[in-house]
Amino acid sequence: MKIGIVGLGLIGGSLGLDLRSQGHQIIGISRQDVTCQTALKQGIADRASTKFTLLQDVEIVIVCTPIAAIASTVKQIIPHLHPDTIITDVGSVKYPIVETCSQLWSNFIGGHPMAGTAQSGIDAAQANLFEGAAYVFTPTEKTKFEDLERLKAIALDLNAIPYICDAQIHDRAVSWISHLPVMVSASLIKACLQETPETLELAQNLASSGFRDTSRVGGGNPELGVMMAKYNRAELLRSLAQYRDNLDQVINLIEGEKWQDLEQVLDINGEARPKFLN
Amino acid sequence: MKIGIVGLGLIGGSLGLDLRSQGHQIIGISRQDVTCQTALKQGIADRASTKFTLLQDVEIVIVCTPIAAIASTVKQIIPHLHPDTIITDVGSVKYPIVETCSQLWSNFIGGHPMAGTAQSGIDAAQANLFEGAAYVFTPTEKTKFEDLERLKAIALDLNAIPYICDAQIHDRAVSWISHLPVMVSASLIKACLQETPETLELAQNLASSGFRDTSRVGGGNPELGVMMAKYNRAELLRSLAQYRDNLDQVINLIEGEKWQDLEQVLDINGEARPKFLN
Repeated sequence: MKIGIVGLGLIGGSLGLDLRSQGHQIIGISRQDVTCQTALKQGIADRASTKFTLLQDVEIVIVCTPIAAIASTVKQIIPHLHPDTIITDVGSVKYPIVETCSQLWSNFIGGHPMAGTAQSGIDAAQANLFEGAAYVFTPTEKTKFEDLERLKAIALDLNAIPYICDAQIHDRAVSWISHLPVMVSASLIKACLQETPETLELAQNLASSGFRDTSRVGGGNPELGVMMAKYNRAELLRSLAQYRDNLDQVINLIEGEKWQDLEQVLDINGEARPKFLN
Repeated sequence: MKIGIVGLGLIGGSLGLDLRSQGHQIIGISRQDVTCQTALKQGIADRASTKFTLLQDVEIVIVCTPIAAIASTVKQIIPHLHPDTIITDVGSVKYPIVETCSQLWSNFIGGHPMAGTAQSGIDAAQANLFEGAAYVFTPTEKTKFEDLERLKAIALDLNAIPYICDAQIHDRAVSWISHLPVMVSASLIKACLQETPETLELAQNLASSGFRDTSRVGGGNPELGVMMAKYNRAELLRSLAQYRDNLDQVINLIEGEKWQDLEQVLDINGEARPKFLN
């Protein structure tokens, strides 16, 4: 297929590498000429340009810009597309994007390939980034069966595992497993920092793998954390409220010295956790 | 030195291996004869017995039983010791143990070598377990300088890093970096499990490294989790209350759409976290 990729960063670049190696023809679009040159040099795209006119006969466009720019990018590319073109995106939140973009373009299908690294930019692009990862698509009632099948085929070309669900269910699920953990973990670091200097210094010296793992996502990219909260605000607030209730229950068990009940909670957790590990 | 180790599990066994290889004479005590045989076979102890009488001329006794048995073990061994013998323990909580045991034996000095594996028992004992790890000692006002120096020398023989602090400050610091993370992480798994089956299943499928790391210690050994809460209850409740306040602040920022303030919190976290990683 002829596939346009708009935004050639880590995700866009990595998609280009893998899809091109699977025989697709890749049209890369970037705001910067130097990025287009890199895309051609690295084998990420067959043709690359800063102009949307190259998109005129692509079958699928994958919008790989930051989440805040997705809707405006869709608006800008629409005048250049054939009416049958499928537009999809790679944003980590789906409901607000799908709400807006499916009104702009009836063949818009939200997408979320769930892979990444700590790096960003085209130089961080790598082959096989999506191997074994989930790739979620969130069709609407208007989505054509064959359009969804074509996107699923792309996910399979990436050796990713396609999942199909409602945009709101996606946002709820990723809040639980990705956005809530960031806030839970961030609150842990934030609380520690309010300790007195002597105890804080000892705590820093004594911290090992338990603290390292529990604090990891709370000490990550601040812009990404704010984006999650901003675009998935409703679902994140919902899961935070439920988390807070459960934290209170744990506090109450410890306060009331209900050791058997606490052990039962930890027992159930220990049995449940492996189902989250793939 | 002639050193007694009472309780030959993962920690006691590993201490024996390293201290014996450093030229110390190790007397191993276990409730079970088969464990004594293993200790001799594995080179963990020079002599091993189920009877405390072997301890009559040791200079230091390291009590390596589970936390709940430390005080009663100290009581049982006292009649067999020379009055100058130093007793120390390896419990992960110090204040309640030091309170009790220093009244039983004036040469009692609390200790906490901060290393371990997911395994337990003498067969899990391994050389160099304590290399690079913190080894905390919590002397009291009555502690003799030279006794503390001898314990510090043992920590150095293990290639561990000795820290000296007040028992309560120790318990406060480990609550922040070890016990609080367990409860924070446990509450995360607990909250997820209350989601509807459809969303829970999707969340399980989509979960990756962020959830894996943040949930790790909350899905760990239930008995250990209860022990922490039981023996470090006051400090854990204190840090849980402070954590809850900070969680509420984060919730309020998201509710109020204070994105700059949220970014500042995450920025500060990102800068602070490396100080906890050794």
